[in-house]
Amino acid sequence: MNNFVYSIPTTIYFGKGQVECLGEEVQKYGKKALLLYGGGSIKKSGLYDTVKEQLAQAGVACVELGGVEPNPRITSVREGVKICKEQHVDVIVPVGGGSTIDCAKAIAAGAHYEGDAWDLVIDHSKIKEATPIVSVLTLSATGSEMDCGGVITNFDTNEKRAISSPLLRPKASVLDPTYTYTVSRYQTGAGTADIMSHLFEVYFSRAEGTFMQDRIIEALLKTCIRYGRVAMDEPDNYDARANLMWASSWAINDFVACGKEGAWSVHPMEHELSAFYDITHGVGLAILTPHWMRYVLDETTVGKFVELGVNVWGIDPALPPMEIANKAIDATADFLKNQLELASTLKEVNIGEENLEIMAKKAAAMGLKNGYRPLAWQDVLAIYKAAL
Amino acid sequence: MNNFVYSIPTTIYFGKGQVECLGEEVQKYGKKALLLYGGGSIKKSGLYDTVKEQLAQAGVACVELGGVEPNPRITSVREGVKICKEQHVDVIVPVGGGSTIDCAKAIAAGAHYEGDAWDLVIDHSKIKEATPIVSVLTLSATGSEMDCGGVITNFDTNEKRAISSPLLRPKASVLDPTYTYTVSRYQTGAGTADIMSHLFEVYFSRAEGTFMQDRIIEALLKTCIRYGRVAMDEPDNYDARANLMWASSWAINDFVACGKEGAWSVHPMEHELSAFYDITHGVGLAILTPHWMRYVLDETTVGKFVELGVNVWGIDPALPPMEIANKAIDATADFLKNQLELASTLKEVNIGEENLEIMAKKAAAMGLKNGYRPLAWQDVLAIYKAAL
Repeated sequence: MNNFVYSIPTTIYFGKGQVECLGEEVQKYGKKALLLYGGGSIKKSGLYDTVKEQLAQAGVACVELGGVEPNPRITSVREGVKICKEQHVDVIVPVGGGSTIDCAKAIAAGAHYEGDAWDLVIDHSKIKEATPIVSVLTLSATGSEMDCGGVITNFDTNEKRAISSPLLRPKASVLDPTYTYTVSRYQTGAGTADIMSHLFEVYFSRAEGTFMQDRIIEALLKTCIRYGRVAMDEPDNYDARANLMWASSWAINDFVACGKEGAWSVHPMEHELSAFYDITHGVGLAILTPHWMRYVLDETTVGKFVELGVNVWGIDPALPPMEIANKAIDATADFLKNQLELASTLKEVNIGEENLEIMAKKAAAMGLKNGYRPLAWQDVLAIYKAAL
Repeated sequence: MNNFVYSIPTTIYFGKGQVECLGEEVQKYGKKALLLYGGGSIKKSGLYDTVKEQLAQAGVACVELGGVEPNPRITSVREGVKICKEQHVDVIVPVGGGSTIDCAKAIAAGAHYEGDAWDLVIDHSKIKEATPIVSVLTLSATGSEMDCGGVITNFDTNEKRAISSPLLRPKASVLDPTYTYTVSRYQTGAGTADIMSHLFEVYFSRAEGTFMQDRIIEALLKTCIRYGRVAMDEPDNYDARANLMWASSWAINDFVACGKEGAWSVHPMEHELSAFYDITHGVGLAILTPHWMRYVLDETTVGKFVELGVNVWGIDPALPPMEIANKAIDATADFLKNQLELASTLKEVNIGEENLEIMAKKAAAMGLKNGYRPLAWQDVLAIYKAAL
């Protein structure tokens, strides 16, 4: 187990009706909030009014920015930064899914930076200060409500890149599973695939001696497997929504990664797909994951796939290791395709061969040589082609 | 899943040599520290000198209180409170196991209270403020390094009672697994039993819909089972010591209890044993746990025991539920007795029938009616008698 520093000070208000704690919590950070949201579904659901009421009751003035995109764009970030600077915003209150919270993080950093916010995405060391964030989550997927990072897209340059700093971790987040009752069957499946991918990225690591972390990752994977399809079939099943929501936070809030090392592999490959084609992140991950697994499986990595097979998928440990490993990958692919009903080929999301090589080169430049298995751009290209 | 507020802001410096972060961390909370420790083993190991050096380098002045007992006593707490008040201590630095950190917590609260510190043990609502705590852990067991509680003994009244408040959670803790290399075979086994008991207390809860929490508890139980005996046999096995140390914190830092309800059962029963006979806490838990399990197993609770049997002990799920449940209890008892080499009867720790009834009445008064299965004093007496 590697040395680490653990620090996750985010307060979580979890459960039905916990939004009633929002006003008091936001108030701790100032008198003026930027309320940030996406396409306006929170207006339909009434959550927008509830949040406004909470802020008003707490004596917090409010400016607004709506229309944050599903893959949030640097143009929205710039708009938010401008508002924060001009209006002297004390605290940012994103209400939505990971995209809205990711956007809030980039705004939070940009509000304390003189230059263009995209600089901070390119170079995280330039983030020296950030506006506090108190989020209200409406989608279980990215874990942005409790982690340090976000992903911002620049369509001028076809770049989709992570922004990350401990300064960007929300001070508090409201997680009310009932807000996810209206999440569509499709987005529920894609979100579950996203959670699972976060777990796979850390599970498959070169670190040794992380027995506890690996068993906890398996616990979270089992939670996704137990409830992903249930939430699709029964959108207002509270326990399904609650377990997925809490799992989404813990899959990526750094806890399971403590003591494990290594860069992620599938996320950088997927980011190129959605940077070029604006596809749903979780779907891109679902397409690539089984192909990445097959590509990196060999005699040196088979042990980890055996753990996955036996401990998560319940495959008979008496079988030969390579057979268990292949069955584990088959089970993962089958779950993503047939239970979560997600695309399993690039063709299904209208991605052809046209940009594969440039995407592979861009992905490889994102540190893939430090992944579980070091990948050059030719390796990435092979994985993309296998996924066609 | 019940509603909850999650907030665990303790920073953990985990791994070999992380004590080098101590001075800087303590400095955040002031200029004068109370260094608290137990029987002096930290002087033999050299850790005492390292800690003193860290504080000196950071410009933190230091007063000392050694000799904190294995079951820390209110008399030591009073002594610490007196020092804190007289010397205007800013921050308390307990270096040791759970007993020393528990003692620090009671001192931290007592230093801000005008009356006798025992009042705060009796009535936690009187804890309004507390001196910050930065701990250095040398024993994996109680989880005090990351939780809100402690246990203090008053031998004037034969009472062993918990003190608890979010204000008492350490601001930071240094967890260096190598400090536990010198922990004896006996104390390693007892500590592991303590961790497992914290997990059982939460696992067996009346709350429903806590799939994720239950799988994570199983992950932590598996970690104890995987490494408890290994650490006894190979005291300087880093991975064993590291996994046990990290598991000890997470078993009781409130995370696994979030969303679950109910009072603990076996701890209150054990506290009477060690209040009356000053036995090792983990040993008392190891003796009582299987008997408590047998006593509460019936048609209404069998499902939870089946989960334990199948998911933790690998018992064939095809067997009849009651058979799985009994095998799960047998496996638990066998592990505690034969792998951790702990006593399995009260007789082995020189406890006879003489005080059973008064202890049962005292334990029952500690809220056992709100446990997994409500227990009256007669139930507790029956469990004690079964354990003779």
